[in-house]
Amino acid sequence: KRQGFPEVIYGEGKAIEHIGPIMGKLIDRHGKVMVTRLDAEKAEHLLGLFPEAEYDRISRILTVGKPELAFGGQVMVLAAGTSDLFVAEEAALTAEWMGCNVRRLYDVGVAGIDRLLAYRDEITRASVLIVVAGMEGALPSVVGGLVERPVIAVPTSIGYGAHLEGITPLLAMMSSCASGMSVVNIDNGFGAAYQAAMIMKLVSEGVHHESPIS
Amino acid sequence: KRQGFPEVIYGEGKAIEHIGPIMGKLIDRHGKVMVTRLDAEKAEHLLGLFPEAEYDRISRILTVGKPELAFGGQVMVLAAGTSDLFVAEEAALTAEWMGCNVRRLYDVGVAGIDRLLAYRDEITRASVLIVVAGMEGALPSVVGGLVERPVIAVPTSIGYGAHLEGITPLLAMMSSCASGMSVVNIDNGFGAAYQAAMIMKLVSEGVHHESPIS
Amino acid sequence: KRQGFPEVIYGEGKAIEHIGPIMGKLIDRHGKVMVTRLDAEKAEHLLGLFPEAEYDRISRILTVGKPELAFGGQVMVLAAGTSDLFVAEEAALTAEWMGCNVRRLYDVGVAGIDRLLAYRDEITRASVLIVVAGMEGALPSVVGGLVERPVIAVPTSIGYGAHLEGITPLLAMMSSCASGMSVVNIDNGFGAAYQAAMIMKLVSEGVHHESPIS
Amino acid sequence: KRQGFPEVIYGEGKAIEHIGPIMGKLIDRHGKVMVTRLDAEKAEHLLGLFPEAEYDRISRILTVGKPELAFGGQVMVLAAGTSDLFVAEEAALTAEWMGCNVRRLYDVGVAGIDRLLAYRDEITRASVLIVVAGMEGALPSVVGGLVERPVIAVPTSIGYGAHLEGITPLLAMMSSCASGMSVVNIDNGFGAAYQAAMIMKLVSEGVHHESPIS
Amino acid sequence: KRQGFPEVIYGEGKAIEHIGPIMGKLIDRHGKVMVTRLDAEKAEHLLGLFPEAEYDRISRILTVGKPELAFGGQVMVLAAGTSDLFVAEEAALTAEWMGCNVRRLYDVGVAGIDRLLAYRDEITRASVLIVVAGMEGALPSVVGGLVERPVIAVPTSIGYGAHLEGITPLLAMMSSCASGMSVVNIDNGFGAAYQAAMIMKLVSEGVHHESPIS
Amino acid sequence: KRQGFPEVIYGEGKAIEHIGPIMGKLIDRHGKVMVTRLDAEKAEHLLGLFPEAEYDRISRILTVGKPELAFGGQVMVLAAGTSDLFVAEEAALTAEWMGCNVRRLYDVGVAGIDRLLAYRDEITRASVLIVVAGMEGALPSVVGGLVERPVIAVPTSIGYGAHLEGITPLLAMMSSCASGMSVVNIDNGFGAAYQAAMIMKLVSEGVHHESPIS
Amino acid sequence: KRQGFPEVIYGEGKAIEHIGPIMGKLIDRHGKVMVTRLDAEKAEHLLGLFPEAEYDRISRILTVGKPELAFGGQVMVLAAGTSDLFVAEEAALTAEWMGCNVRRLYDVGVAGIDRLLAYRDEITRASVLIVVAGMEGALPSVVGGLVERPVIAVPTSIGYGAHLEGITPLLAMMSSCASGMSVVNIDNGFGAAYQAAMIMKLVSEGVHHESPIS
Amino acid sequence: KRQGFPEVIYGEGKAIEHIGPIMGKLIDRHGKVMVTRLDAEKAEHLLGLFPEAEYDRISRILTVGKPELAFGGQVMVLAAGTSDLFVAEEAALTAEWMGCNVRRLYDVGVAGIDRLLAYRDEITRASVLIVVAGMEGALPSVVGGLVERPVIAVPTSIGYGAHLEGITPLLAMMSSCASGMSVVNIDNGFGAAYQAAMIMKLVSEGVHHESPIS
Ligand SMILES: Nc1ncnc2c1ncn2[C@@H]1O[C@H](COP(=O)(O)O)[C@@H](O)[C@H]1O
Ligand SMILES: Nc1ncnc2c1ncn2[C@@H]1O[C@H](COP(=O)(O)O)[C@@H](O)[C@H]1O
Ligand SMILES: Nc1ncnc2c1ncn2[C@@H]1O[C@H](COP(=O)(O)O)[C@@H](O)[C@H]1O
Ligand SMILES: Nc1ncnc2c1ncn2[C@@H]1O[C@H](COP(=O)(O)O)[C@@H](O)[C@H]1O
Ligand SMILES: [Mg+2]
Ligand SMILES: [Mg+2]
Ligand SMILES: [Mg+2]
Ligand SMILES: [Mg+2]
Ligand SMILES: [Mg+2]
Ligand SMILES: [Mg+2]
Ligand SMILES: [Mg+2]
Ligand SMILES: [Mg+2]
Repeated sequence: KRQGFPEVIYGEGKAIEHIGPIMGKLIDRHGKVMVTRLDAEKAEHLLGLFPEAEYDRISRILTVGKPELAFGGQVMVLAAGTSDLFVAEEAALTAEWMGCNVRRLYDVGVAGIDRLLAYRDEITRASVLIVVAGMEGALPSVVGGLVERPVIAVPTSIGYGAHLEGITPLLAMMSSCASGMSVVNIDNGFGAAYQAAMIMKLVSEGVHHESPIS
Repeated sequence: KRQGFPEVIYGEGKAIEHIGPIMGKLIDRHGKVMVTRLDAEKAEHLLGLFPEAEYDRISRILTVGKPELAFGGQVMVLAAGTSDLFVAEEAALTAEWMGCNVRRLYDVGVAGIDRLLAYRDEITRASVLIVVAGMEGALPSVVGGLVERPVIAVPTSIGYGAHLEGITPLLAMMSSCASGMSVVNIDNGFGAAYQAAMIMKLVSEGVHHESPIS
Repeated sequence: KRQGFPEVIYGEGKAIEHIGPIMGKLIDRHGKVMVTRLDAEKAEHLLGLFPEAEYDRISRILTVGKPELAFGGQVMVLAAGTSDLFVAEEAALTAEWMGCNVRRLYDVGVAGIDRLLAYRDEITRASVLIVVAGMEGALPSVVGGLVERPVIAVPTSIGYGAHLEGITPLLAMMSSCASGMSVVNIDNGFGAAYQAAMIMKLVSEGVHHESPIS
Repeated sequence: KRQGFPEVIYGEGKAIEHIGPIMGKLIDRHGKVMVTRLDAEKAEHLLGLFPEAEYDRISRILTVGKPELAFGGQVMVLAAGTSDLFVAEEAALTAEWMGCNVRRLYDVGVAGIDRLLAYRDEITRASVLIVVAGMEGALPSVVGGLVERPVIAVPTSIGYGAHLEGITPLLAMMSSCASGMSVVNIDNGFGAAYQAAMIMKLVSEGVHHESPIS
Repeated sequence: KRQGFPEVIYGEGKAIEHIGPIMGKLIDRHGKVMVTRLDAEKAEHLLGLFPEAEYDRISRILTVGKPELAFGGQVMVLAAGTSDLFVAEEAALTAEWMGCNVRRLYDVGVAGIDRLLAYRDEITRASVLIVVAGMEGALPSVVGGLVERPVIAVPTSIGYGAHLEGITPLLAMMSSCASGMSVVNIDNGFGAAYQAAMIMKLVSEGVHHESPIS
Repeated sequence: KRQGFPEVIYGEGKAIEHIGPIMGKLIDRHGKVMVTRLDAEKAEHLLGLFPEAEYDRISRILTVGKPELAFGGQVMVLAAGTSDLFVAEEAALTAEWMGCNVRRLYDVGVAGIDRLLAYRDEITRASVLIVVAGMEGALPSVVGGLVERPVIAVPTSIGYGAHLEGITPLLAMMSSCASGMSVVNIDNGFGAAYQAAMIMKLVSEGVHHESPIS
Repeated sequence: KRQGFPEVIYGEGKAIEHIGPIMGKLIDRHGKVMVTRLDAEKAEHLLGLFPEAEYDRISRILTVGKPELAFGGQVMVLAAGTSDLFVAEEAALTAEWMGCNVRRLYDVGVAGIDRLLAYRDEITRASVLIVVAGMEGALPSVVGGLVERPVIAVPTSIGYGAHLEGITPLLAMMSSCASGMSVVNIDNGFGAAYQAAMIMKLVSEGVHHESPIS
Repeated sequence: KRQGFPEVIYGEGKAIEHIGPIMGKLIDRHGKVMVTRLDAEKAEHLLGLFPEAEYDRISRILTVGKPELAFGGQVMVLAAGTSDLFVAEEAALTAEWMGCNVRRLYDVGVAGIDRLLAYRDEITRASVLIVVAGMEGALPSVVGGLVERPVIAVPTSIGYGAHLEGITPLLAMMSSCASGMSVVNIDNGFGAAYQAAMIMKLVSEGVHHESPIS
């Protein structure tokens, strides 16, 4: 038994003959399914098999069906550069799929700090913030300093040379001087959105079932 | 100015002549202060200057005053091995300081899975889980699979050889197959607790100030 | 002179013109041969030359002939994810080729611990366990804690980002807190199976030739 | 609860006030105890508390009581250089403690291949071989080529510069061209011995409880 | 012969018996000398030998004599955290020693972006900017985005865990998305100041000696 | 708002449909545009859309329009090997685009020191030096020792094996024993030229606006 | 001016339009030329232009003309595995080109030590030994222990996983316990042969021009 | 048994009780002995036991007796910086001990190329060159370009930050563009000298025993 939102398939490296049947089974059981990391060619084939499916070329996500839940509050997805959008959109679409209300704020890299600060009010009003950045990965530190909300940082593979395919921003985010921030794997927009949804779900359910304290 | 909980001093590498006056100023302004990463020798000196202070030898945290907030729900701190306790206690004491209700569950490493599973019900009832592990850092993956709550993983510097002073569990946690999990820096119990408190604060405040959606 | 099971060819990076003749020579001498790491295209060519050969697409192993030995007991091959099967099957087929009785237990990753524990009795009855895992490589630690038998861990190249093409689970397995476990190279199902067979051969031959002690 | 041989304490980084009581409890329950990675100063203190204890300065192991089991066959411990003896002896004493019959063969590094080959007959008669080597870690490859028995390789932290505190021989052993060999963590003589004992235990118990095959 | 400013001694790892005579010789020849990376104990000895010397405990720089040059414009030294001051002061004192007019701006880390932006006008008026940062090393990117002047980034060894003793901010600064920025070695305040002074010297000398163009 | 020279597009990984419109907009606003990291195939398409554009196959830079500024002095671009020219030309063309007077000095690697020294006079007359080198990256150290001017070092991805795709010369340049030198990312000829232009702009503008000193 | 054997072109990454003319020029000046790292397709084209040329598919070396020198003694090239031959042959052909008398000894990996030792007498009679090995790179240590002659070790890129594309055997060879051995870059058969030829040239020229001693 | 020059003891990490007796035995057998990597304190003790011994504080080498051999020609030891002398002297004293005629050329780093070139004639007359360099390790490339003799490069642990305790110059030397150069481990002056002596021994013995060619 898989936990929580079981209708998600990780498409990377899986053949269509493999994905098709699982999709069928999940649609039968849950009335919906989401496939991530699916390239356009495979998506085309699957759209043939599942005409009701929708495919998004940027995030490379294919979906059948709609979210059942609709959490209040807002998950904000920020992205430093336009090349990071494929990760930001994986996060945004996943969060929406899981029931979150998502606000996108893109192309707000730290080398042009004014653009970011123009949205300061909105940023502080967000419930949870997913901050996506490649290169040196500095955006989450600045955002983390602006808010008193949980910040989930996502390093991306966008960069070259000393960027080490994302290892550099990953380590930099880990070493951030901003509190209240945690990090997921390189390009893992899905994982960041999943944790954001877990938080929104907790907010939505509340903490009434008080457990006896140790 | 530190954001949110401004009365925390990072004691590592700071001299007493430096810490003392800042403590004084923070006590004046907030009526309380917390110093982390403070070794026993320095603590002794500061206990001389601030007799109302309390020092915890395991977490190496010194505090003056008490938390003002008291969030509902529960932050559970799990630790794999007894050598990881200094990190787990940094997390637990920080979370308590920030107003969280903390439950500790220690010495539940994955090589003795039955001990962990004996607490399964309690684990699933927690609001947020901080999972501390050195060596191969496998515990968060197992815990993440048991719950539908946010899991914050903390790799520790406890291990040797291929463990690379914590880089190995850090990378392993990043690569975890469990969803809903994010990671903070090696030995950063403080950072994990800070994020947990941000989540509990969000839960406590709720999401009433609905922002207009993009 | 090569040791032990000399009729194995490592196919990676070898041309058909190179593999064909060696196969012929080994069949002449031993009546059988096994080729590992052989892609489907090359396999097709070789099946033309050796019509009695059998090729397995998942493990990418081609064989002519059958094992002569048949050890008692059981080598269990466990795999964490379905993407790791190519390594697990390299191990399983190699172990069978060398005379082992093999039991497969797949898709038992630690993020869904119940699926693994459902097979607990069988697991504890195995003689030797080969545990294959990509991502964070946590499965061998859990399995190692369940048994008092030798565990051979195989990290796989399945994962992304912080997974470092398998270096992360390799180092994690090395750092495992479970005793009685050792590790082979990334994706080296062959090597794990070879050692498992060495163990079963020792069990089968027994330890009668007592050597004088130092 | 530690699995199998529960009476072992890992002494590294533990205080005497911590180790003493656990020792007492384990002696009560099992009549014996072994402490590894114990420096001479701590050992002295503990010898005061437990006068029946024995301490070995090279392996840094302290023991109370004797092994109950006595497996047939032979575990051979080979070491490349004299500086690697502290690891080799950790392996040898642990294996003996667990009931193995141990043969030591030290100072047989590959740069003087004749010394090693002088023992060729004995080497091929061993049941399991633990091969300890620092520097470039080449010895296990040569030994692995001489025998048809399981070889457990242990890289050591002895070396400098490009040796990277043992990471280099660890990776080299992983990449070995000899089959039937697996690797444990740097300096982990204990872990190698534990696996060797698991193998000898399997040999001693045999494989009579045939499990139904998949 | 050291180029340009020959009266500088790198004190790290040099004995007093070694430094003393070189100092004497340089004072004879140039009437002044500067020693960097000199610990307090050695400084005390040298102050005995050269009573006219001055020692700064933070930068660990000892000087005899005064700068001859006095460039116009301004070299601004910014530092992210108070723990980075030893590097910032090495830069500041070296730049002053070489004739630069130095402005210090400390404790302006990106997690509290308002403090930095409060000095925006001054920052844009600086001629050259040396930006010192440990942890994730994000400050130079933000500063680089505010100015149209050369920015020299200095990563520091202040941080822990994923910070890798400065390798992480070094790689992050290299990967920065801000243009016009270059990087020197970890903690190398001296090197950054030296380059800043080379720039101010060029500005001061002008570019009158037009060389024939290719 | 982007800083300084806003009419530059980083072409790597961008589609023509993406680049074309931005080019149009920038030409409208600034009368000119430069695209870097543009492969020949994409360039061909864009030359169709913008017939006034010019494309350089070595640097992979496409430009429309001409520099407005013309700084005095001279930026010298030195390259160690002929394989490094693609980086050297990215630097040279960018510097020219930004208004610098550029002198190229190529194929002057340190293993043939006489070729380099034949240009010694010219080298010492340059205002700023951009030194491009792959392999072991030694050239900047030698050049840095010849001049009292700012040296900007650019490691390249040209090399193999221990060269680690440029990480080795990057780290070597960072560790250089020559003063007054700083380093940019691997293959980042653009970044080096940008900083060189910032320096020439400062020289050209002078330092008349004296800011009040701290 | 290039040193020593100036008629060598490094073909990697060079276009035919680039190589052709240089070849022509070198043939004019020296009557001969050698091109290394030349793939078969480019070679075909060049054989059209230079019909007197000879191309070797394994080493990927193309030559025009013959060696002028003929040193006495013997350079022995040993290779561990058959997959390493492309490097071994680069070494062998280069050494022959430079005038050395070359003896090849292939497929003598340490996991089958008897094959190597069968040639022991010949090995000890060689003047200089080039030892080529991928995987764990253990062969040079064993050979180094057999001879009192200079040993030049060449790590190769043949291996997988923990082998790190040759970094592992490179570091292992560096850490070797055999004296009298030095190492060149991964796959650098050319460099090893060049040094071997330098040694044979020294032997051939002798050391008559005694320089006055310091 | 150590090969060739058997009377050498590696002192690092060995106790006096261990070194003393081996020294005695080697003096008995060979009339001489050399101990490397011996700290001053241990040396003092051993000088008590062996009053005829001589100890050199820089190289940390202790010797009893004199070289028997006296090769013609000249081994030149070059060192880039004065901090590298401990390695250079280990090389120089070892080479002398083995019978080489040694010329020292120190403090000739590449950032002051004139100092190096002042010795150009002498450099080209040397038979073998050992080039010692820390920091970026550029010296061997320049020297290699000046001579047609074997160059053995020795990276040192002198440097900081990006220098990675010598790994950076090691990798840089490996990637050198100068031909005829090979590399030994970090700080391994002994190993470089040993190989130089092997070369001088070959020169001295000549290559008269022509072996039959393959
Ligand atoms: N883009 C993604 N990145 C990381 N994990 C993912 C992604 N998409 C799906 N997953 C996880 O992979 C699981 C499905 O894996 P699988 O059974 O291999 O399809 C889901 O339940 C998620 O936990
Ligand atoms: N998949 C594999 N992974 C690692 N080693 C293998 C594999 N298959 C075969 N080998 C080893 O490679 C040897 C054959 O190598 P070769 O002579 O190159 O074909 C066999 O005897 C095995 O020891
Ligand atoms: N070759 C290059 N390398 C690094 N950065 C570049 C390069 N070319 C342009 N840039 C930077 O990238 C910015 C444009 O990025 P973009 O908006 O993604 O096109 C420019 O303003 C420059 O700062
Ligand atoms: N296979 C090789 N590996 C390393 N260096 C080589 C190789 N072949 C040639 N070289 C070196 O490269 C130089 C020629 O480089 P280039 O001028 O780029 O053709 C020669 O003089 C050699 O020093
Ligand atoms: Mg915050
Ligand atoms: Mg979960
Ligand atoms: Mg077990
Ligand atoms: Mg074997
Ligand atoms: Mg700027
Ligand atoms: Mg200079
Ligand atoms: Mg030898
Ligand atoms: Mg040369």
